[in-house]
Amino acid sequence: MEEKRILLSHGSGGLMTRELIERHMLKQFENPMLSLLNDQAVFRTPSSRLAFTTDSYVIDPIFFPGGDIGKLAVCGTVNDLAMSGAMPLYLSCALIIEEGFLFSDLERIIISMRDACEEAGVQIVTGDTKVVNRGGLDKIFINTSGVGALQDGLHICGHMARVGDKILVSGFLGDHEIAILSRRKNLEFITHILSDSAPLNLVVGPLIQAGLGQYLHAMRDPTRGGLATILNEIAGQSQVGVLIEEDLVPIRDEVKGACEIMGFDPLYLANEGKLVAFVDGQKADEVLSLMRQTKYGQEARIIGEVVAEPKSVVQLRTAIGGTRILDILTTEQLPRIC
Amino acid sequence: MEEKRILLSHGSGGLMTRELIERHMLKQFENPMLSLLNDQAVFRTPSSRLAFTTDSYVIDPIFFPGGDIGKLAVCGTVNDLAMSGAMPLYLSCALIIEEGFLFSDLERIIISMRDACEEAGVQIVTGDTKVVNRGGLDKIFINTSGVGALQDGLHICGHMARVGDKILVSGFLGDHEIAILSRRKNLEFITHILSDSAPLNLVVGPLIQAGLGQYLHAMRDPTRGGLATILNEIAGQSQVGVLIEEDLVPIRDEVKGACEIMGFDPLYLANEGKLVAFVDGQKADEVLSLMRQTKYGQEARIIGEVVAEPKSVVQLRTAIGGTRILDILTTEQLPRIC
Repeated sequence: MEEKRILLSHGSGGLMTRELIERHMLKQFENPMLSLLNDQAVFRTPSSRLAFTTDSYVIDPIFFPGGDIGKLAVCGTVNDLAMSGAMPLYLSCALIIEEGFLFSDLERIIISMRDACEEAGVQIVTGDTKVVNRGGLDKIFINTSGVGALQDGLHICGHMARVGDKILVSGFLGDHEIAILSRRKNLEFITHILSDSAPLNLVVGPLIQAGLGQYLHAMRDPTRGGLATILNEIAGQSQVGVLIEEDLVPIRDEVKGACEIMGFDPLYLANEGKLVAFVDGQKADEVLSLMRQTKYGQEARIIGEVVAEPKSVVQLRTAIGGTRILDILTTEQLPRIC
Repeated sequence: MEEKRILLSHGSGGLMTRELIERHMLKQFENPMLSLLNDQAVFRTPSSRLAFTTDSYVIDPIFFPGGDIGKLAVCGTVNDLAMSGAMPLYLSCALIIEEGFLFSDLERIIISMRDACEEAGVQIVTGDTKVVNRGGLDKIFINTSGVGALQDGLHICGHMARVGDKILVSGFLGDHEIAILSRRKNLEFITHILSDSAPLNLVVGPLIQAGLGQYLHAMRDPTRGGLATILNEIAGQSQVGVLIEEDLVPIRDEVKGACEIMGFDPLYLANEGKLVAFVDGQKADEVLSLMRQTKYGQEARIIGEVVAEPKSVVQLRTAIGGTRILDILTTEQLPRIC
């Protein structure tokens, strides 16, 4: 029996679009706002101070060890909200699907999005579905945008890092990119590395609830471009120097090994469930201790600090005692990583 | 001299992404929130009651008579907010670009988005840029999501149409789809039809400011699927009947002519700058009169009314006096229309 596939008319805006939405989306994402089937969601937020973000996901392959494009699309946008200290509330879900895409794959992605929403405590309240002729895109792209509510008094921003801040990472770096790479290149020697895709509001929320939000000066998730790139971004935005201890950066041996073989630098690898926080030096141990009690922060550690000079420069003190400058990513290591 | 083109590394998240954003996006979309270059925008809204919407734009061709994908992406999302009665405030802009896309075309699209934002009175405050390998998508797709502020007491919703409501359209129907068709099929006999792409908050805003918002029961813009489809949607959601007078539906002769040649039904044609409003029968003339004073509502008219029976059915009284049932669109007339 032939498997059911997406047709152009599923993107027509007519009857087949409605059936696709009612039978496949609403069933999984069920909530009163979405069920109204208006072209927009209407809601009240606990605060009129909001964070708003968007990301498109074009990852290849769409299913990979540790996740899929659907999980990524929910977690990635939740994480961009969480990095401002906001409580993620509502997401949009816009699908662009290639004609001929398998319904069974779509179902798998939607269920994965539903599960990720449940874990992150967010709801998909509005959406859009387009179908493009065969060859017009590669399989499926997903855009999620998100709205979160932000407490007064929180000003976590790339410009707010200060001299004396400690720099924390929430766990092992590089797993996501190596997991994708292993799948894409059929690298069978990489067997245990899963994408780290995870909702980071589960790491940040407890810090803010504990009253530590004011000590988080800058926070960002090191996705494309990896740790080195976002450290450079924040050093530049805050006009400070950054000094990192190579020995302290948590990277799995298997990831290091894969990098050596492929000629990659692990400090530039993309992550999808890690954060880097610039934390007031006086409170860094307290933040670290609480972060390590969260599900996705168990391997958190302090990897370096903010220094006065040289401004806008990231330095790495290597294991053998020298220092080298870590620049921003200039050429892509692996396209379509998220 | 070879023209400058988008490379995969413009989507890396590293240096070239930053240059692309700073030199091309920030220059046009300049505003304090975007300039912070965080992964999310933070703002206060005038109300904690919000509307939130998303749409992806995959239109082919990307430049067409009366607009382009950029103008469409701004107006389409502004319109979905405006249809709830919300004041559109902030948009996101997520670009997915094919490797090799011309910088000059990107620049043209971004300037068009900037101009549309200016006219609509909205700001692009957050964004994302992905580049996909050649052949991974057809040229460029744009997702915009939007946030708007909603007054208390406004409940404009597809479920709120009532028996006795008058049905208004804000102008000529079908121009957008025929403009796209003319360009796609090189139909040279269609010379004067431009896409109607326009920001409909300029039509709805004055109605709400005049205190007429409470008389707008349901409102929707007839994009994919056209007038017939959205009338069916609202008839079904509100469990009412809809009766339309064919003679009263404003369609240009040139659009009717093109439809006859192509075998299209103009009532199913997509629009990008028109709205259909279900308005309290007692206030319909007042709403119409004010709507006709707005730039994009000058050709507004009443085309029918809401009746008790048959529920969920849309009937068209034809020019020669019979009635026929207008069903929801079942097969697509033209793919990639928005």
